[in-house]
Amino acid sequence: MTDITQTFLSAIETELQRQVARLDQPHTAEFHSMLTYHMGWTGEGAGPRTTGKRIRPLLVLLTAAASSKTGAWQDALPAAAAVELVHNFSLVHDDIQDNSDTRRGRATVWVKWGMPQAINAGDGLFILANLAMSDLENGYPAGTVVRAARILQNTCLDLTRGQYLDISYETRADLDIESYWPMIAGKTAALLSACTEIGALLGGADEGALAAYRDFGRHLGLAFQVQDDYLGIWGDSALTGKSTASDLVAGKKSLPVLYGLAQNGDFAKRWHAGPVAAGQVSALAEQLALEGGRDFTRRAADQLTGKALDALREAAPQGEAGGALFALADRLLGRQA
Amino acid sequence: MTDITQTFLSAIETELQRQVARLDQPHTAEFHSMLTYHMGWTGEGAGPRTTGKRIRPLLVLLTAAASSKTGAWQDALPAAAAVELVHNFSLVHDDIQDNSDTRRGRATVWVKWGMPQAINAGDGLFILANLAMSDLENGYPAGTVVRAARILQNTCLDLTRGQYLDISYETRADLDIESYWPMIAGKTAALLSACTEIGALLGGADEGALAAYRDFGRHLGLAFQVQDDYLGIWGDSALTGKSTASDLVAGKKSLPVLYGLAQNGDFAKRWHAGPVAAGQVSALAEQLALEGGRDFTRRAADQLTGKALDALREAAPQGEAGGALFALADRLLGRQA
Repeated sequence: MTDITQTFLSAIETELQRQVARLDQPHTAEFHSMLTYHMGWTGEGAGPRTTGKRIRPLLVLLTAAASSKTGAWQDALPAAAAVELVHNFSLVHDDIQDNSDTRRGRATVWVKWGMPQAINAGDGLFILANLAMSDLENGYPAGTVVRAARILQNTCLDLTRGQYLDISYETRADLDIESYWPMIAGKTAALLSACTEIGALLGGADEGALAAYRDFGRHLGLAFQVQDDYLGIWGDSALTGKSTASDLVAGKKSLPVLYGLAQNGDFAKRWHAGPVAAGQVSALAEQLALEGGRDFTRRAADQLTGKALDALREAAPQGEAGGALFALADRLLGRQA
Repeated sequence: MTDITQTFLSAIETELQRQVARLDQPHTAEFHSMLTYHMGWTGEGAGPRTTGKRIRPLLVLLTAAASSKTGAWQDALPAAAAVELVHNFSLVHDDIQDNSDTRRGRATVWVKWGMPQAINAGDGLFILANLAMSDLENGYPAGTVVRAARILQNTCLDLTRGQYLDISYETRADLDIESYWPMIAGKTAALLSACTEIGALLGGADEGALAAYRDFGRHLGLAFQVQDDYLGIWGDSALTGKSTASDLVAGKKSLPVLYGLAQNGDFAKRWHAGPVAAGQVSALAEQLALEGGRDFTRRAADQLTGKALDALREAAPQGEAGGALFALADRLLGRQA
């Protein structure tokens, strides 16, 4: 990891704690502690593994620095905190909606404090994100603050549209491959696109570079998700034979699964027959590969990765931050597990 | 109801529908329909009874018009829509948190579409509120838009603090009367206070009048809630003998109940003995009155009502909207059932 990335990550953590501390008030200490727990700072095992990778705020700061004439980034910190708070708001609600009891190796908020408090904790994180955005006023003209806030809110609306589709897909039998894209466009790509667009706006990029950065973020998100879907079936941890990490066991309607269902062959027949046990994962993954699902997914990921890197080159990020932005993209898109 | 109030209510409904229509897009028609159902426009029995009274947006517009030199209010419409959307976001989540299956005489969103979609629908309403706020840009300088948004977000944080307390109080046995105020300050008073403060800001009120309007909203909210607590035990519908509408049956820790528990007399003994049946409501309400709970609550409501009207007089609202503001306060504070 580059030096500038380390510097940014440390500044992000400090800013996040400052934003969340708005809730550290009389009467609501326990409410505050739900959020510090979810953010990974307190509770059992708290440390780098429980905070997550902070990819989104890093994208904001790197884009701001790489598109700024002076390389300045400090004033963009509240926006970096805001996107991470939005991400975490969606995770807290997602865990309730999916009935997930662990995240990053620990009990989820709803498991520890109950569903009603967890809904409220998620709401609180989102509101803290919005308040962080208004702190941009200290470093930017009000018109820029309003524009940045509008980008983030439109993105959040996309997030809820993606979430609506994701939930409704669980019970739908008529899905085709095309159903996949609007869902991940909302769930994964929208927020990454907002990170790079807001970063470019705060860095003072011209409208052309801003559009290129936005495209970079969007394709980075799409490529990352398709790659994630690939690894969810053919990655090392999904294929260890008795692994339950496979998306096939979870019944997730990922891109390769939707491809396989569209072929209407042996894979589809087995999928419709009922839940897949861990012991059947390896053979079923092989069957899906035989029907073309692995190549199809690989090609889609490669195409999207190409588009992401093309857009980034077009944006022409500058300086040390520019180099770190390419390195981050490589790290996200080249991962093998 | 005055003419101006009717004009405003009609404009509010149109603006709300325009804001919610952001979700009327390909792939997410059903998501949109969850929101139009909750807002009272579609589904069984849709009509004035299912939309609610729109008190909050009315307060925004009346305050804007009454504090403006020209009586203008149209540009404030997006803010009026925003506060109503915030209110409804909190209702959708509240219904899940409280396990309530009806609202305004109809099935709640989670009952119709399931808990996961209902969490997401609430999130969507809140995001639409934030987008509505950014539409203020069409009528006001960006600095005013940022200030109004900050007022609303601080208020939303107060809402979640109140909600946190409300949920945590359900299982706490050590509550005293003083526990009551921070809870209703967040749950009820904060949003009404934001309505009048934002209205005054958009109307161009000076800082003194703005503070008076904010105080008016806050005391109006507190008085309304205490009045509501009074009627929840001694109002006509709570006292009809076999009524289950009584807060005593619901086990709600309202102001009179907290007062009664602090007396540690026969009322407290009965309360601690377990759930109250509908047939016991009348005698228990009488016991609480004997111990001083009715007078105490009545006095608190009267004091807060006095403070609300004092603040409104200090704000000196002008014109037809000013008269309508006093009439609205009287209607809210003088209600008998």
